[in-house]
Amino acid sequence: MVNVLLSGSRVCRHFAAPLGRELRARGVDAVLSPDHGPEAADYIVLDPSGPLRDFTPYRRVRAVLSTWAGAEVFATNATLTQPLARMVDPAMTRGMTEYVVAHAMRHHIGLDAHVRGLGGEWQQVLPPLAPERPVTVLGLGEMGRAAAAALSALGFPVTGWSRTPRPLSWLAQSLSGSAGLHAALAGAQILVILLPLTPGTENLLGQTEFACLAPGARIINAARGPIIDDGALLAALESGQVGHATLDVFRQEPLPPDHPFWHHPRVTVTPHVAAETRPDSAAAVLAENIARVERGEPLLNRVDRAAGY
Amino acid sequence: MVNVLLSGSRVCRHFAAPLGRELRARGVDAVLSPDHGPEAADYIVLDPSGPLRDFTPYRRVRAVLSTWAGAEVFATNATLTQPLARMVDPAMTRGMTEYVVAHAMRHHIGLDAHVRGLGGEWQQVLPPLAPERPVTVLGLGEMGRAAAAALSALGFPVTGWSRTPRPLSWLAQSLSGSAGLHAALAGAQILVILLPLTPGTENLLGQTEFACLAPGARIINAARGPIIDDGALLAALESGQVGHATLDVFRQEPLPPDHPFWHHPRVTVTPHVAAETRPDSAAAVLAENIARVERGEPLLNRVDRAAGY
Repeated sequence: MVNVLLSGSRVCRHFAAPLGRELRARGVDAVLSPDHGPEAADYIVLDPSGPLRDFTPYRRVRAVLSTWAGAEVFATNATLTQPLARMVDPAMTRGMTEYVVAHAMRHHIGLDAHVRGLGGEWQQVLPPLAPERPVTVLGLGEMGRAAAAALSALGFPVTGWSRTPRPLSWLAQSLSGSAGLHAALAGAQILVILLPLTPGTENLLGQTEFACLAPGARIINAARGPIIDDGALLAALESGQVGHATLDVFRQEPLPPDHPFWHHPRVTVTPHVAAETRPDSAAAVLAENIARVERGEPLLNRVDRAAGY
Repeated sequence: MVNVLLSGSRVCRHFAAPLGRELRARGVDAVLSPDHGPEAADYIVLDPSGPLRDFTPYRRVRAVLSTWAGAEVFATNATLTQPLARMVDPAMTRGMTEYVVAHAMRHHIGLDAHVRGLGGEWQQVLPPLAPERPVTVLGLGEMGRAAAAALSALGFPVTGWSRTPRPLSWLAQSLSGSAGLHAALAGAQILVILLPLTPGTENLLGQTEFACLAPGARIINAARGPIIDDGALLAALESGQVGHATLDVFRQEPLPPDHPFWHHPRVTVTPHVAAETRPDSAAAVLAENIARVERGEPLLNRVDRAAGY
């Protein structure tokens, strides 16, 4: 019998039923509750935006399982010394890929004019085809690889960039490290950001980086807000060097009502929906990870505290 | 030496240079001109919307090569007895796939709300993922197969339908013939029309067919206007049975300024741009076909007059 603490109201509301079902399906006899005390909890399933901040008393906890893909909120929490797993869920990866493909195709074929309507004007505009439209994807983790693969399959020449080298044969170009960043950005007409937020990626993209892109480039940030220097982005939008920014993530969420991004004519704000956790599939991932630890196997998707993700 | 008649002003303007280059690259010694008379022309490269209607005097013509994918304008021209090829160009197929994917993804993730702006409202709406969104593609020729394959690769369960059976292992379902049409439409949330226009497909989609779709289904017609019964479509949009129609093709093109489609809130009009002929790649296709005939090989993409395409 294992005690699973459901921490945070979103976790209680959405995960109790599917996680119970998925644990039973794996033969794990578990009591799921938001009320397990530090002396009772064997596992913590965690909404990182919930109230739990001090993990010190949870001495018997065998693993903390986050429902978020991003691990940045833990990087500065010295009380969290238990093994920690972030969420890597095929459904979240799929949702992210769909968001990135939809927004990339929107810019690629000039969909805004279609959505807004041509107002009775039969004016044929021929966009270039995908092979003539260089795309750069920053970050080649689960989500970055999936989005890059989908864009490559559609015919875009995709340059991939990651902190450490991750050569992938189907990429047009693979670059890595600080030394490769500017070359990776050079000439990109669509820039997709799918990096983890770490001290090394905070404010990674500023004036110098935007200047590397093709003039009028479109940016899609579905990773974390602080990776972009907001002031530099607004200036690059003003000058036209960046033609449009589609932002799903922000330094402060919800984005404050008076933030200039909300009504900027060349900014699309989406409310952190690109890769929302989907409880049914995420519960299977959590249950599998708990079952693994119970069988004495290593935790999957374990956060590397030195790397920050 | 062969004489190639360039028929129609668009053909003269856009094809003369690339076609000359592509023929030279294949060792075909050709004179390209809009002025070859019936007694001189060996080949006709044709814009079907141009003035040439009577093909009777062109007795030495070895092939008529259309720059259009659709062959319906020839079906009723009894003077055109010469071997006739329609345009099958990988770049047109790619452009069509990009248009279909962009508009399908637009509907799939609810992109209109993003494009129009959320007006400062941080409201998270989670669309279903692609595997939960049934898509039906009518027509499994070059373009239908390519679009269906791209949508399948993105995770949509795609039902394919064609006049004659064309089983494709990666389709969720393959159906064919009049008997299979209603089953192919059943429950589709996105319907993509990529059929040729023939007497058998004219007005193929009317009230009964729309009623088979999932309520609120989205329709994308990038084939030919008369395949849809316009009155039935307007009624289905009115009742909500069809949620939205994206139309790239119309019974009359350009679409007349007073046509109700132009300003209908649930219709997107695009001006026949989904698969525009791209002269550079199309010229290579034309030159290759002329070179084949000169070598005594059969004409590619030859129109089957009985089938109408």
